[in-house]
Amino acid sequence: MHDHAEVIDVASDALESSFERLLSSIPAFDEAASRAAYARQAELTKPAGALGQLEDISARLAGVFGEPTPDPRGAAVIVCVGDHEVTREGVSAYPSEVTPAMVNAFLSGHAAVNAIARSVNASVTILNVGVATTLAPHPSLVNAPVRLGARNIRVESAMTRSETLRAVLLGADVARSAVEGGADLLVAGEMGIGNTTPAAAVTARLLRLSPEAVTGRGTGIDDERWTRKVEVVEAALSRGASSADDPMEVLADLGGFEIAAMVGVMLQGAACRKAVILDGFVEGAAALVAARLAPNFQAFLFAAGLCAERGHRAQLNALTLSPMFDLGLRLGEGTGGALAVPLLRAAAATLREMRTFAEAGIPR
Amino acid sequence: MHDHAEVIDVASDALESSFERLLSSIPAFDEAASRAAYARQAELTKPAGALGQLEDISARLAGVFGEPTPDPRGAAVIVCVGDHEVTREGVSAYPSEVTPAMVNAFLSGHAAVNAIARSVNASVTILNVGVATTLAPHPSLVNAPVRLGARNIRVESAMTRSETLRAVLLGADVARSAVEGGADLLVAGEMGIGNTTPAAAVTARLLRLSPEAVTGRGTGIDDERWTRKVEVVEAALSRGASSADDPMEVLADLGGFEIAAMVGVMLQGAACRKAVILDGFVEGAAALVAARLAPNFQAFLFAAGLCAERGHRAQLNALTLSPMFDLGLRLGEGTGGALAVPLLRAAAATLREMRTFAEAGIPR
Repeated sequence: MHDHAEVIDVASDALESSFERLLSSIPAFDEAASRAAYARQAELTKPAGALGQLEDISARLAGVFGEPTPDPRGAAVIVCVGDHEVTREGVSAYPSEVTPAMVNAFLSGHAAVNAIARSVNASVTILNVGVATTLAPHPSLVNAPVRLGARNIRVESAMTRSETLRAVLLGADVARSAVEGGADLLVAGEMGIGNTTPAAAVTARLLRLSPEAVTGRGTGIDDERWTRKVEVVEAALSRGASSADDPMEVLADLGGFEIAAMVGVMLQGAACRKAVILDGFVEGAAALVAARLAPNFQAFLFAAGLCAERGHRAQLNALTLSPMFDLGLRLGEGTGGALAVPLLRAAAATLREMRTFAEAGIPR
Repeated sequence: MHDHAEVIDVASDALESSFERLLSSIPAFDEAASRAAYARQAELTKPAGALGQLEDISARLAGVFGEPTPDPRGAAVIVCVGDHEVTREGVSAYPSEVTPAMVNAFLSGHAAVNAIARSVNASVTILNVGVATTLAPHPSLVNAPVRLGARNIRVESAMTRSETLRAVLLGADVARSAVEGGADLLVAGEMGIGNTTPAAAVTARLLRLSPEAVTGRGTGIDDERWTRKVEVVEAALSRGASSADDPMEVLADLGGFEIAAMVGVMLQGAACRKAVILDGFVEGAAALVAARLAPNFQAFLFAAGLCAERGHRAQLNALTLSPMFDLGLRLGEGTGGALAVPLLRAAAATLREMRTFAEAGIPR
């Protein structure tokens, strides 16, 4: 594993060309493998279609991995963490000081994502890509902040293009390491107090929706704070510093470091022909950016649960994804994505380990 | 593990007293442990309620296992198999010959339930409690048919009371063995060509619903066969041989051997203070019977997915259960139940492995 921090120091033109290489490295979904998987599902020892959505998931995995009987095993959750100066505007129920405290919780192994990931045998990596305070080194922390927090999107763009590229490439770098470590299923997770505000702004712009339609309660704010949050998203959009037609511009203008890093995680996962699991609303904003950047990307993406945050459904519809469950999660961190890992493994197992009626000698 | 077949040879009064002991052995749900779990969830390092239904599941597991931080590990799927002479009436898309062929598929480890159970580290046990043909012995088969198929419910009761008791106690016996083998999570699964017809009849009677409301497409029948199936359910109910107020009478009259065995699996699971996972419509009919037999039972039951079979939602509503996912499964076998195993483990892990804000030193 090489030094993830190195991308911080490279020149802008080198960043641009690395980013172009990342985008162009995403392969096409393997339609032939996917069709072969569907054909096999129709012959397996069960009534046709009786495994429901699990059959679709299995065929999508076949297309992702480029083989009719895929065998996804290792799973990695990459929790991208960053802060947001927009918290000064009173958009969140929690202060930014909670962000580094949650990083410590992740590193101690006692946060929700740790517990859930362990229970499904998935690794957890924490990427500090923009926490507002300086964090102490830790063996499980990729500590490479591009900046100490994203700028206040109410009044200015969150990141420069160069900062945005650095964050994307950092995410990609960590994803590549996870794949080298054996991950077949990649969950892009996040933590960052205030980050449902930039996620709402990015979603509103890219999907051309009103702030009200995509602004939710985040960690649990009251009506008054929600009204303020909608105003802040409205103000950020009104600055007019990004066009819905330029996803990188939108990401830089309205996003944040952990959102950019998730874009990188997702794109690199697809570039490595791995399944990328989408969890939650902030991740959904990153997925929208990734899907606009690389037409091949979307086919590599799987939706875990339906997040309770308003606007998640609109994201999934735009990505033509169906969630696997609806447990009312609204935590982020990659928790929902980790919960989906066994469902993907199970779907693939039916293709790989079941026999057809003919193989089993059962009359149809 | 003692000889499961022994209950076949005991006298009726011994069966009755064993059954009474089973019913009376089901403990009360531990409300104090459940409350303690809820209180802990409210203090863990996440916004209150952010894990949604997973928090409710974790608190229910606490009440089931009688400890605030339960640790369910082992999981067992018990596939109860039986035939139905009602298939003569043309209610199913498949002939009864498929039942023993599917048993062979289960025993070879290549059916859907095997693949999915392996992927979540759950064991699979096959219980032949009423297949119409004689099955060869196999080390993984509990081969103890009470009768070679349930009688044709269109014209007569499916089972005698004594047969019904034998099937229930066989299921209980196999469940006890699974618990002794380390199972904390028990999935009652089933296979038996034609068995959505008796399941519909049992459900219609116990819930006082019309045959149309609870009769589905089973393995995939066309409109003509569905109309015939509804008529058969109607005819079975019209015989008037059981009262909705006597669940054992309904089970014997309108059920079948694998449904009775699942009642036993479920009751014994609760008696052992284990979580019982409900999967699908035929299992739902068994759960309705179990819930009517023992008031304490219902709290030990968890709904896996929403089954695509018509009538499943009415069963879950009657049992006041919410499904964890809706993947359109309609296979039975315990497939949906096995898929729910990692979700239950994950829910319990959050209680056990997460820290509270105070423990982690994070400001609220």
